[in-house]
Amino acid sequence: MFPLDQWYVAAFAWELQDKPIARTLLNRPVVLFRSNGRAAALEDRCSHRHTPLSLGSLESDGIRCGYHGLLFDPAGHCLEIPGQEQIPKQACVRAYPVEERNHIVWIWMGRTPGTQPTVSAPEHSWHDNPGYEFKGDVYHYKAPFELINDNLLDLSHLGYVHVKTIGGNARIHVNADMTVTHGSEWVRVVRHMRDSQPPPTYLDVWPFEGRIDRWQDIEFHVTYLLIWTGGMDAGSGDLHDPNRSGFHMRGFHGITPETEATSLYFWTISSNRNPARPSMIDAIHNATAFTFEEDRAIIEAQYANIARFPESAMVGIHVDAAPNRARRIVTRLSGIPTES
Amino acid sequence: MFPLDQWYVAAFAWELQDKPIARTLLNRPVVLFRSNGRAAALEDRCSHRHTPLSLGSLESDGIRCGYHGLLFDPAGHCLEIPGQEQIPKQACVRAYPVEERNHIVWIWMGRTPGTQPTVSAPEHSWHDNPGYEFKGDVYHYKAPFELINDNLLDLSHLGYVHVKTIGGNARIHVNADMTVTHGSEWVRVVRHMRDSQPPPTYLDVWPFEGRIDRWQDIEFHVTYLLIWTGGMDAGSGDLHDPNRSGFHMRGFHGITPETEATSLYFWTISSNRNPARPSMIDAIHNATAFTFEEDRAIIEAQYANIARFPESAMVGIHVDAAPNRARRIVTRLSGIPTES
Amino acid sequence: MFPLDQWYVAAFAWELQDKPIARTLLNRPVVLFRSNGRAAALEDRCSHRHTPLSLGSLESDGIRCGYHGLLFDPAGHCLEIPGQEQIPKQACVRAYPVEERNHIVWIWMGRTPGTQPTVSAPEHSWHDNPGYEFKGDVYHYKAPFELINDNLLDLSHLGYVHVKTIGGNARIHVNADMTVTHGSEWVRVVRHMRDSQPPPTYLDVWPFEGRIDRWQDIEFHVTYLLIWTGGMDAGSGDLHDPNRSGFHMRGFHGITPETEATSLYFWTISSNRNPARPSMIDAIHNATAFTFEEDRAIIEAQYANIARFPESAMVGIHVDAAPNRARRIVTRLSGIPTES
Repeated sequence: MFPLDQWYVAAFAWELQDKPIARTLLNRPVVLFRSNGRAAALEDRCSHRHTPLSLGSLESDGIRCGYHGLLFDPAGHCLEIPGQEQIPKQACVRAYPVEERNHIVWIWMGRTPGTQPTVSAPEHSWHDNPGYEFKGDVYHYKAPFELINDNLLDLSHLGYVHVKTIGGNARIHVNADMTVTHGSEWVRVVRHMRDSQPPPTYLDVWPFEGRIDRWQDIEFHVTYLLIWTGGMDAGSGDLHDPNRSGFHMRGFHGITPETEATSLYFWTISSNRNPARPSMIDAIHNATAFTFEEDRAIIEAQYANIARFPESAMVGIHVDAAPNRARRIVTRLSGIPTES
Repeated sequence: MFPLDQWYVAAFAWELQDKPIARTLLNRPVVLFRSNGRAAALEDRCSHRHTPLSLGSLESDGIRCGYHGLLFDPAGHCLEIPGQEQIPKQACVRAYPVEERNHIVWIWMGRTPGTQPTVSAPEHSWHDNPGYEFKGDVYHYKAPFELINDNLLDLSHLGYVHVKTIGGNARIHVNADMTVTHGSEWVRVVRHMRDSQPPPTYLDVWPFEGRIDRWQDIEFHVTYLLIWTGGMDAGSGDLHDPNRSGFHMRGFHGITPETEATSLYFWTISSNRNPARPSMIDAIHNATAFTFEEDRAIIEAQYANIARFPESAMVGIHVDAAPNRARRIVTRLSGIPTES
Repeated sequence: MFPLDQWYVAAFAWELQDKPIARTLLNRPVVLFRSNGRAAALEDRCSHRHTPLSLGSLESDGIRCGYHGLLFDPAGHCLEIPGQEQIPKQACVRAYPVEERNHIVWIWMGRTPGTQPTVSAPEHSWHDNPGYEFKGDVYHYKAPFELINDNLLDLSHLGYVHVKTIGGNARIHVNADMTVTHGSEWVRVVRHMRDSQPPPTYLDVWPFEGRIDRWQDIEFHVTYLLIWTGGMDAGSGDLHDPNRSGFHMRGFHGITPETEATSLYFWTISSNRNPARPSMIDAIHNATAFTFEEDRAIIEAQYANIARFPESAMVGIHVDAAPNRARRIVTRLSGIPTES
């Protein structure tokens, strides 16, 4: 079970070119394509014999099945059945509401077919901010979305999993100043690590000269997280000033369940331009990708291992506070009865 | 469930050389081999410890298990148990009736063990016709045999799936003159496409000079289909004359279920000799193989997708007439209670 | 179900270096490592979020989880939880008794958690005998341990499976003098093949000049087998004299169930030194490895085939005597009610 009346990331805008894309989202096979410039999403099934529409071809009016040639428009209406005049009403297929915003294509799966979204898709303006550049990727995870949320909401793991890149000394993370706040559909974790040694990745891309004041500001929303991290020369500004100087990374993390056991992870990293190094986004993207591969390896191993110890209870520890808060939100919105 | 009292294709004659072949046919593991020149089929299991006999070696009297050396003759009798004199009666294994005809090895699986076939295996004389040459292949399909039958009985898909080879313009196929006739164990679809543009493959192998009269004559039998296609210069003969001139392709399609979810597809293509191009069978075989790979891709994707939409009904359309007729025959002979 | 109150081989001593090893033993995921020089085994699960400890890193005190940094000692106690002072008692993980002897690391899985072994782990002194050299390997089998025991207890298969290496003429094996004796937890098969042709492998490594007296002496114990084979010039000694001359191979075969359907096979081959060829252990190891690959291929095929013939009974033959005896011991010690 998943929260259904939500906007989920279905694709990045640049993925939708001249070919349809097949993706399973929340257990439902979906074909994504662009028709007359606009993103569209249909269930990935021709109504005739269930051939995937994603094997078909794009035409100006919509998508044509590659087996017997039925043609469907972006609303799922069948426009043509080769060999017959009459088009039965039930030949249509389900269409999903889609919204394209800041280079992200959002989809509304909906608890009930045909219901329309009640809110607009989320904004992520850093993708269109001229002072920033960004780059991203789509990863497939053999793990449920909750384990990815857990990982992103508890950055104490940086000192163990990512010691060679964005981590650095484990003590720094464990002893950081941490504040957890939350609302009914969000959790926020702010961590300040003052006067600390910059980690390897930071030194690669920004001209720090000594110790730095570091921050991690994690905002969990039901279907995505925003992680704002960075650092500035120690003492050079106020960690509570939103316009503080230094090196800023604005991570976008869209976690879309594929099935109960697998997930799609849409991520981008945006960073402010370093005047001295105009192309640093590639280096930042590469370091981030490396980091996320480390996470994926451990999360997938964790998930596989959970199934191997069905009778062992998990022991809660201090760092679980924010992940547990987020899990309660997801559980409530999924309509799963809670225990406490 | 499958129709069991039928001859199914088990192999082509040229496959049975000096090594046994393991094949699952209608859910039953079978070892096929040649003993004293004659084709034979046993269940693929030594009666001792169930090692596959197909891992054994061929001797003049039969096949010897590769583990402890038990020897079986083509009738399934155990001739020798190394290390003991006495051979218990239950050491025999099940043998299946086999008939080799026109380079095709047919097997009779039988509803009840031990029952003998009541009819001879089908003839396919084109394989032995001196005016024709032929070539073929065995394909494995991750799809049930019914979906392959559907595909071969409705050639309207040629204009979509095979547009680059034997297809050509989709309208030609959709608007063809079509006659469907049937008996209790066969369906026949005849399609005439007069005065049409020859498709790419035809032009490659035959010296057509302009437009052609094309035909497709599909005969479904319970375990195989015969597809006679071809073309002649437009107006140069009568499409109802069985001895008409032009370019003839005689397709043989033995569809043998491996399991409920997978199939073996034994096909050959025979064509009359083009005096100007003596070796054209290779070109025809290659083009046909390419076409069948296109079919396999779409049929396997269709089958996988059907399982992903268990609650969606299929919408019947005009072109389903012949496939549906064949499905009713298979259902009846499988002993499955029919709904209508 | 397996016999649980037994020592099983978990690893060879040389496998435990500076990295933890993950292995499933009797259905239980285990991490094996060396701490302060001593072999240790814990369940392969961090008590916090079930990440495999085998992905963690070794420290002088024990093993540290690679996700959030919890530290465990070889007894399974949690020594540290980064970010908190208090360590709850239930944060410990299960430890298994381990004994390292003659380069073999044995593990006691135990019917009940926490019970200690009542006997010492088995000795295999040939590994430390200066007159012998040895070499071995770990194989993974897609087959249950009983089928491997069957194989090793009935060497009549040598003439069929291993005809090109240690086998030679099948008649020799089938007609060997054979004695089977047994106790409550062992079975012994002794086979003498007098005045026979040495098989290819023997000729490769030992200067035999003509026919030989060969022996095979197989001792089955619940979790391992010892197979002493060899040969001496025909008539040059007494086959009942334990100190007889000639070429001796002392095989150690630890068969540890991984799951009901898969096994780990730890084997070594020790042989007496041939003064004329000091490095012959590599040749013997290679020939043995080749032989075991032949066995694995046939045993895995046998196991897969058994599942395909669920309704066919197996027919017992003469050579099954010793394997059947061993199966009864395993069944009894597994606590499975016996039929006879």
